[in-house]
Amino acid sequence: MKRAMVTRRTALAGALASVPLQSLWLDAALAQSDPLPSWNDGATKKAITDFVARATTQGGADFVPVAERIATFDNDGTMWCEQPVYFQVAFAMDRVRVLAPQHPEWKAKQPFKALLDGDMKEVAAAGEKGLLAFIAATHSGMTVDDFHRIVLDWIDSARHPRFKRPYTSLIYQPMVELLGYLRANGFKTFIVSGGGVEFMRPWTDKVYGIPPEQVVGSSGVTRFEMGAGGKPVLMKTDQVEFVDDGPGKPVGINRFIGRRPIFAFGNSDGDLQMLQWTAAGSGARFMGIVHHTDAEREYAYDRNSHVGRLDKALDDGRSRGWTIADMKRDWRVIFPAELTSGSR
Amino acid sequence: MKRAMVTRRTALAGALASVPLQSLWLDAALAQSDPLPSWNDGATKKAITDFVARATTQGGADFVPVAERIATFDNDGTMWCEQPVYFQVAFAMDRVRVLAPQHPEWKAKQPFKALLDGDMKEVAAAGEKGLLAFIAATHSGMTVDDFHRIVLDWIDSARHPRFKRPYTSLIYQPMVELLGYLRANGFKTFIVSGGGVEFMRPWTDKVYGIPPEQVVGSSGVTRFEMGAGGKPVLMKTDQVEFVDDGPGKPVGINRFIGRRPIFAFGNSDGDLQMLQWTAAGSGARFMGIVHHTDAEREYAYDRNSHVGRLDKALDDGRSRGWTIADMKRDWRVIFPAELTSGSR
Repeated sequence: MKRAMVTRRTALAGALASVPLQSLWLDAALAQSDPLPSWNDGATKKAITDFVARATTQGGADFVPVAERIATFDNDGTMWCEQPVYFQVAFAMDRVRVLAPQHPEWKAKQPFKALLDGDMKEVAAAGEKGLLAFIAATHSGMTVDDFHRIVLDWIDSARHPRFKRPYTSLIYQPMVELLGYLRANGFKTFIVSGGGVEFMRPWTDKVYGIPPEQVVGSSGVTRFEMGAGGKPVLMKTDQVEFVDDGPGKPVGINRFIGRRPIFAFGNSDGDLQMLQWTAAGSGARFMGIVHHTDAEREYAYDRNSHVGRLDKALDDGRSRGWTIADMKRDWRVIFPAELTSGSR
Repeated sequence: MKRAMVTRRTALAGALASVPLQSLWLDAALAQSDPLPSWNDGATKKAITDFVARATTQGGADFVPVAERIATFDNDGTMWCEQPVYFQVAFAMDRVRVLAPQHPEWKAKQPFKALLDGDMKEVAAAGEKGLLAFIAATHSGMTVDDFHRIVLDWIDSARHPRFKRPYTSLIYQPMVELLGYLRANGFKTFIVSGGGVEFMRPWTDKVYGIPPEQVVGSSGVTRFEMGAGGKPVLMKTDQVEFVDDGPGKPVGINRFIGRRPIFAFGNSDGDLQMLQWTAAGSGARFMGIVHHTDAEREYAYDRNSHVGRLDKALDDGRSRGWTIADMKRDWRVIFPAELTSGSR
């Protein structure tokens, strides 16, 4: 324990030149206590703290300069809950209901009709194609500024069907602590999600401490137009621009960040290529997977789930010695005690 | 003068919580002397320092929180020279010459034949389409890691035909000082260039102090593939992914940064929409244009230039009161005295 503290302080000195003061204060506080209080002691927690100690020990074989301490996190199922449906899908379905009066044609058009009739079996039968239709219809035809406001309004008012909490209160407390712990050790933290980048950016800074420019995600085509009174606007169209999922994740990391992560955390097969890309770099590496094993406190699912299916990545992770965080075993708490409702 | 210094210190206190220590030391040094020594005193320099004072004065009407102090800079012609051809085009033409032995078919194929024959008149006649052919042929078919090394090798060895200096020594000293001055005042600085993002990222950190993740540019499609021995690679293809120029600049800013800049600097009509987008936000704004007026020390060109044409943006900038930096009048020096050759 003492040794770990010394290591952390040495790393601190090395990081001094480019770590914000705010983080130094936080780190000083953390050094005196457990930096990851919501993680149970055990192999998973030790793998994390050992890696950070090695990467930040000046002169050590695994030392990584601050500029290269890039950490990427999937969002759905890794940073916040993704059941019973991806929260962005819940948002899109709520928006279809709100916008229905302006779209009388939806009454006769599937999958909109099924949703408006409350026939969720029929909605489910429409599969991913149906969900994409909801997203295309509700994420286009407005400016990016208007969409930003619509997202924040929904975040403030919507409640999760099972937990009856704001969706941004269903973030994983252990993972939020991990973000802070990494930042206190000179890491730059990024979200790299299959979710829409414009759905996440309005609230990630407040909820995760991750600013908009460190959020990578899927996106639609936007178009620059001269609006009323010569005021330019960016209009959201219904065309897909980029899908940041599966093999798209290393592509997105390369395009947006331009450096290979040394630390990556995911929870599904959609994160496999990000983890492979991270693992294939030289020097110290950390690859982590959240395994949803706790039906009581959250959900239990892996190989047979439609949402966040974890199959090949679980096998690969186990055989390659990646760190598997078992939610039931490793997490003392799941969600924050206090509600994180406000988005502003 | 005294008042400006006090203002700067007040701003500093406000920014303390999130500005790197390194910047604080730099700022302390700057506060004791002129923060922009390569800018001649006059209206342009005053417009810059007045804006920064206003944006950073706590409690002032134009105060901008640190998180929103986003500054975007075009690269070619704004941060470094772009004559007689864009430096990336010079790179592509050098690469065609190097790769010619592996491409015997180029001897019979225009515009490659013309270039290899040294017939620059014919190359010029091929226009932009010809240049894009050089770029497509030399920027694809290798991994992103290999391309990174090729760029750095070229940066280290190539010399500009007129100035006989490494290309990275043809950066504008006044603009480099401006980047440092803004960062010392809590701004986050970004490159937003029509140039290729993977051509810039290998050297922008060393040369401008701008890390890869703060460089936005044009890009080709990359593809994730499993390479030899199960080691994943990102392959560069010859398809265009995104053109970060003209109306593409606000689109790129929205996609990569996710916030609207409050400060933007460009030099050509390709920057007009970025400047319009910046100007259209609320609160304090700064829009700047570098006007190339110095044929003796650099180049003089605007409305009739093929490279970096400045026509509509010059008219709009003048009529809307944007800041026009007149190179001959406003810049005491153009290039750094010391060579910035090394890229590593």
